[in-house]
Amino acid sequence: MTDTITIEDVQAAAARINVHRTPVLTSTAISSIASENAGVPLELFFKCELLQKTGSFKIRGATNAVQLLTDADAGKGVVTHSSGNHAQALALAARMRGIPAYVVMPNNSPQVKKDAVKAYGAQVIECEPTLEQRETTAQKVIDETGATFIHPYNNPHVIAGQGTIALETVAQEQQLDALVVPVGGGGMLSGCSIATKALSPRTRVFAAEPLDVNDTYRSYAAKERVTNTVGARSVADGLLTNLGEIAFSVVMENVDGVFVVTEKEIIQAMQLVWGRMKLCIEPSAAVGLAVVLYNKDFHARVKQDELRRIGIILCGGNVDFANAVALFEKFK
Amino acid sequence: MTDTITIEDVQAAAARINVHRTPVLTSTAISSIASENAGVPLELFFKCELLQKTGSFKIRGATNAVQLLTDADAGKGVVTHSSGNHAQALALAARMRGIPAYVVMPNNSPQVKKDAVKAYGAQVIECEPTLEQRETTAQKVIDETGATFIHPYNNPHVIAGQGTIALETVAQEQQLDALVVPVGGGGMLSGCSIATKALSPRTRVFAAEPLDVNDTYRSYAAKERVTNTVGARSVADGLLTNLGEIAFSVVMENVDGVFVVTEKEIIQAMQLVWGRMKLCIEPSAAVGLAVVLYNKDFHARVKQDELRRIGIILCGGNVDFANAVALFEKFK
Repeated sequence: MTDTITIEDVQAAAARINVHRTPVLTSTAISSIASENAGVPLELFFKCELLQKTGSFKIRGATNAVQLLTDADAGKGVVTHSSGNHAQALALAARMRGIPAYVVMPNNSPQVKKDAVKAYGAQVIECEPTLEQRETTAQKVIDETGATFIHPYNNPHVIAGQGTIALETVAQEQQLDALVVPVGGGGMLSGCSIATKALSPRTRVFAAEPLDVNDTYRSYAAKERVTNTVGARSVADGLLTNLGEIAFSVVMENVDGVFVVTEKEIIQAMQLVWGRMKLCIEPSAAVGLAVVLYNKDFHARVKQDELRRIGIILCGGNVDFANAVALFEKFK
Repeated sequence: MTDTITIEDVQAAAARINVHRTPVLTSTAISSIASENAGVPLELFFKCELLQKTGSFKIRGATNAVQLLTDADAGKGVVTHSSGNHAQALALAARMRGIPAYVVMPNNSPQVKKDAVKAYGAQVIECEPTLEQRETTAQKVIDETGATFIHPYNNPHVIAGQGTIALETVAQEQQLDALVVPVGGGGMLSGCSIATKALSPRTRVFAAEPLDVNDTYRSYAAKERVTNTVGARSVADGLLTNLGEIAFSVVMENVDGVFVVTEKEIIQAMQLVWGRMKLCIEPSAAVGLAVVLYNKDFHARVKQDELRRIGIILCGGNVDFANAVALFEKFK
């Protein structure tokens, strides 16, 4: 396993993984609002990864990593510690190959999340809700079973898999001036930047991040990895993690800018997508649109670089509906 | 204007109207549940008209009717009385042609619905909330302005426009064994049946209707138009109307069966689409899936006719999110 990920890795992943080619949708209403806010006419193109198997893009990377295991390794299964979209994705990826999956989850995870992972046939192993306990418990599973640990983002095969989102997007909508990608651990961002720079070099790649967990914004500015304050939170619960090591080096090379948005901006963008596009996106998936709608630095950049056709990745839709409605009420 | 609608009318409408070609999506999870319930392996294909402009299929028929007006008539505008999806659709269709639209709405309509129609540039005229007052007020607008009344479903041009849904669906997913279409006034059902029988004669066309407003089910059985009890209600608020006259004759000729579902079945199907497909459908749009999942007569028919590949139209997504969540809670 090498840390250098190439466009050939992404193309091979695209041929290897059996997932939905998700649609790219448009919304006249939302493009109008963005144009008004930015002061220039924008056309927005939404890559709908919430419509992906398991409700998020994570199945792309998980499937690529699982498919690349040798038969001997695969037979022993795969393991991860996650309570989020990667857990479901790895569970389904393992089931599609017919191998065991072990998912270490904090014992305070919502029952609905445990059930979702179990429904895909994985074994859930509960632990105390600390990172140390999650890592210790995962290691114990590895020691006992010989299963392979599949990291949610700091894994080249996972990154290559996530890059297939952009590979599809630049084929579905040609002549994109920019692609805006939410960033947490950076698997999606780094993979998409590799695919975009290779297949559509004119397309800028921008990262979108919640202000309250803005480690990528600060890392990009400082040119070295810095981390979020322990315990920092955001409504965008899929983006709380710090930028991974592999992603950091790719981001520094490929990404053309990082922009941040407030909690309120995230939820307002989320509500627009629900209301105008009828798509149940999760808060993390609204961060890209929030940047395009509300970030003044982004608007300045759009004018400066004459960007008009903007791709935005709606990365997932795993959200409790009652919680979503409560967030709309809270931030209205 | 003739009452006989042909496939050529539908094809001409498809070339004339400028709307989204909405995607056909699949869900492994929901197909599995349907297969288990039916006792035979089913593959479901969802035509996503909730992703259509204005959030429902109604823009197809409205645009076709508006585009077919002579310049002289068009200049005087169009009028309808509706508080639902047709009102927004007609407003946008008129704006796209640059002509006035007048929408008569009951004065107890939710503000959000009035605002939606106004946002598309239509003039809202309020009246007392009775059918008589709506008709009287619309007639007054016609007398004063010379505007053309565009009926939401009992209009051949509207029906031809709605038929473009099926025209697209049978091209996007070939070899469909059946297409299941929700029915209220029957514009969508009759238009889709004309397109399907012409372009894919092997495909059965089935109507899906709420049990509590089952006039089409009873009309189909009696071979004559019967109506719902005045004041009959359903959570599927887009399907409360009685089958129109034109639709009735088309339905008797083309439709292979009518199946009904309970309120609880509608909401359970709706919640599955939200949860598994991340699509915010309105209750009316869940009625087709509810039939496929829960109707025993439908399951018997599927076995008898050896139907496996089933298309389902998700016809709209205009729903208040808090109300939707309350319905999920009520019917869980």
